[in-house]
Amino acid sequence: MAERNPLHIAFLLYDDVTQLDLTGPAQVLSRLGNATIDLVAATRDPVATDSGSPLHPTATFAEVPRADILCVPGGFGTTAAMEDAATLDWVRSVGTEATWVTSVCTGSLLLAAAGLLDGRRAACHWATREHLALFGAIPVAERVVFDGNRVTGGGVTAGIDFALALMAAIRGEDHARFVQLSLEYDPAPPFESGSPERASPETVARYRAMVAQRAPDRAERFAVIARNQAARRGL
Amino acid sequence: MAERNPLHIAFLLYDDVTQLDLTGPAQVLSRLGNATIDLVAATRDPVATDSGSPLHPTATFAEVPRADILCVPGGFGTTAAMEDAATLDWVRSVGTEATWVTSVCTGSLLLAAAGLLDGRRAACHWATREHLALFGAIPVAERVVFDGNRVTGGGVTAGIDFALALMAAIRGEDHARFVQLSLEYDPAPPFESGSPERASPETVARYRAMVAQRAPDRAERFAVIARNQAARRGL
Repeated sequence: MAERNPLHIAFLLYDDVTQLDLTGPAQVLSRLGNATIDLVAATRDPVATDSGSPLHPTATFAEVPRADILCVPGGFGTTAAMEDAATLDWVRSVGTEATWVTSVCTGSLLLAAAGLLDGRRAACHWATREHLALFGAIPVAERVVFDGNRVTGGGVTAGIDFALALMAAIRGEDHARFVQLSLEYDPAPPFESGSPERASPETVARYRAMVAQRAPDRAERFAVIARNQAARRGL
Repeated sequence: MAERNPLHIAFLLYDDVTQLDLTGPAQVLSRLGNATIDLVAATRDPVATDSGSPLHPTATFAEVPRADILCVPGGFGTTAAMEDAATLDWVRSVGTEATWVTSVCTGSLLLAAAGLLDGRRAACHWATREHLALFGAIPVAERVVFDGNRVTGGGVTAGIDFALALMAAIRGEDHARFVQLSLEYDPAPPFESGSPERASPETVARYRAMVAQRAPDRAERFAVIARNQAARRGL
């Protein structure tokens, strides 16, 4: 097998991240060959996730000043992470130099707030996608979106499709097919309910109501973040 | 919303587990409503996974003597876990009393070695499925297999399909459809390569060669485990 160039992958980790946004792509990308993965946060304290058990950072912002691939997962914690200057600064700094700047789910909002998706097409969780425009990105209703070296995935499980597509771009299609087989990724969802187009209107309405209840002030917080972003740029 | 009965879910954790075998279903099942999740191992020391960063147990075997749902993930570490008496004893003990006894990927081999799949139909990773028969289970080439309260999933990513199907059995189809939408689970694999039937013969051969290189003595070790299992039963 040909020697593969080493790749360092940095996942941002923050409180109330959606665990699978990170663990899905981490599983796939760990099979890039000659790749190392760090889960990076402000400190090494355990980070709460939305799925009942914490994830533990393997490195701090200070320890990871650069990476070949930056990946920002999403979750209900994304808004607070976008309000944190240290987080935005680290994402901006690593993302400016990274070979690939990527996200899953609402992670694209954080990339956009860090100024990394200006004028770029980007995916996001279907229920939150529209807010990308506030931060200068162009929301796209696709599962995986490439725009130059920006590669963004849709909601949660889209991270697996995103990571296989990124793998093909980096290591070639043959390798991605091999990894897909290793992960037995031949999905068979038990229901047709994975997108707002396929789900029933009642299910879509229930989900939107849950988000409104759980994050009632999100639109206002996004507006403040966008104003701060504009002010920082001297606009 | 109707009050939901509390559910305690125990995932077995062991060295060299395939991370997504566990994190996929954990993400789904954390949305069962009124559910708590433990990652259970012999000790609380961090456990190495195959995807570049460790997982941290939230409880020890001694602390979790029972659970409503037992889930055993797979990975290259499964064989060593099957050779460990304390692991088999805990799985057998919790599995005997659990409402649902489940696995993903090669985790079904561990369930079978613990005597929990005698005469039961079970799924497994496609490349390892055949070995289930050694331990008294009936290998089935399906992505999700229900046999009474035994529910087993195929390789790695099948854990997401498995967990949604289990969720529908426990909380009803409407709830599972809601969770599927929340996770935007409308998969779009970039290639047709997720099963030995869909992948090219060359890709299948490459995968089998990798397994043979990485686990050269696996068949012999399974045979020893099966003999010990038979001896323990006084057969």
